[in-house]
Amino acid sequence: MGAQAREKVVVLLSGGMDSATALAMARNEGFECYALSFDYGQKCREELHAAAFLASSMGAVRHFVIPIGLDRYGGSALTDERPVPRSGEARTEFGIPETYVPARNTVFIAFALGWAETLGAHTVFIGANSVDYSGYPDCRPEYIAAWNQLARLATAEGASGGRPVEIRAPLMHLSKAQIIRTGRALGVDYGMTVSCYAPQDGLACGKCDSCVLRIKAFAEAGFPDPAPYVEA
Amino acid sequence: MGAQAREKVVVLLSGGMDSATALAMARNEGFECYALSFDYGQKCREELHAAAFLASSMGAVRHFVIPIGLDRYGGSALTDERPVPRSGEARTEFGIPETYVPARNTVFIAFALGWAETLGAHTVFIGANSVDYSGYPDCRPEYIAAWNQLARLATAEGASGGRPVEIRAPLMHLSKAQIIRTGRALGVDYGMTVSCYAPQDGLACGKCDSCVLRIKAFAEAGFPDPAPYVEA
Repeated sequence: MGAQAREKVVVLLSGGMDSATALAMARNEGFECYALSFDYGQKCREELHAAAFLASSMGAVRHFVIPIGLDRYGGSALTDERPVPRSGEARTEFGIPETYVPARNTVFIAFALGWAETLGAHTVFIGANSVDYSGYPDCRPEYIAAWNQLARLATAEGASGGRPVEIRAPLMHLSKAQIIRTGRALGVDYGMTVSCYAPQDGLACGKCDSCVLRIKAFAEAGFPDPAPYVEA
Repeated sequence: MGAQAREKVVVLLSGGMDSATALAMARNEGFECYALSFDYGQKCREELHAAAFLASSMGAVRHFVIPIGLDRYGGSALTDERPVPRSGEARTEFGIPETYVPARNTVFIAFALGWAETLGAHTVFIGANSVDYSGYPDCRPEYIAAWNQLARLATAEGASGGRPVEIRAPLMHLSKAQIIRTGRALGVDYGMTVSCYAPQDGLACGKCDSCVLRIKAFAEAGFPDPAPYVEA
């Protein structure tokens, strides 16, 4: 086994199509993959099962689900008593959907950085994507660039002039259709990914932002969407 | 009540002397204080009781203790099966004490940023200090500066060209003796703060890095240390 094969990566894995694709890309680059998910009180519990399945079936050597109390302070329609809005509805005063979870990706990357440091990994993959874009501030290229500045200073090895941990967002500039084509070529089973913010009896609602983006993505990619929907 | 009195701040509160002083400084500036602590599996459980007492006695309007699984991936003598080393012992390969918890402050600030955003606060206080310094990479001014770059991009309001959340480390350039003098002038009860990494029956060990720094600090400040020690 060469040095390349032994490089470790921490992959943030939500259970949705983007992070599943990021995991497939990491595996394809020869990384030894450590998958990281979070139970942050999200209403969509199915995505945690999806993450476990994807980690296992795609050869991650370990999968952690870290319980974190993001729902303690609320602030998102994904975690508090508000209903999950239909796509396009219910923007906040800053023009961002109500499904935005304050500092979610920031918290996720912080944990990934800590696990990477503990493992001796120098790479974190996140499936953030700025095309066909949710409007979330923490999915943009300048946000990831700022994280890399911080990561250089935040870890023991990086701060000692050694190799820093790099935060990579390999899907950043891909369209959703390109993501699906890439993932299919790498063997991602999109039928096992969960995108819906509020599934009902295991069926995607087809109406929330995340469903609407996904449906559009599969249409553009020219493949049938294997996910089951409430209204076909 | 003026506008100044209604500004909110999230104060990271460990229960030690630095964060207690940061809370006192925030209160003294007229902020409405929201105190945030974490149960990350630290062996020193006393510090969480201390944090609750300090938040309550120093007028924080709310105190959250967020359980987070930092101990899941280990990597520190403060959370895993290793004993807490005596001061000066057991440095890692990067010259940093074994008590360093990978990405701890990074995770803490990420949560504070999310709570600040939810509250409509624009300030986070952290008691990080680079003088009489632990050697931890995540306590340095350049680290806090990088966080402020990230925070400008990470929140909905900041990313929309509005007011970002500012991460402030008001103790950064104070010596430990200056911190104690400042806190005493602001009414901090240092007898209720817990610095020891591994107290025994409520008594500080007097030998770990944190105890040694504290003992030195009180000696330099010219005040008796009100904390109880195993060996007086």
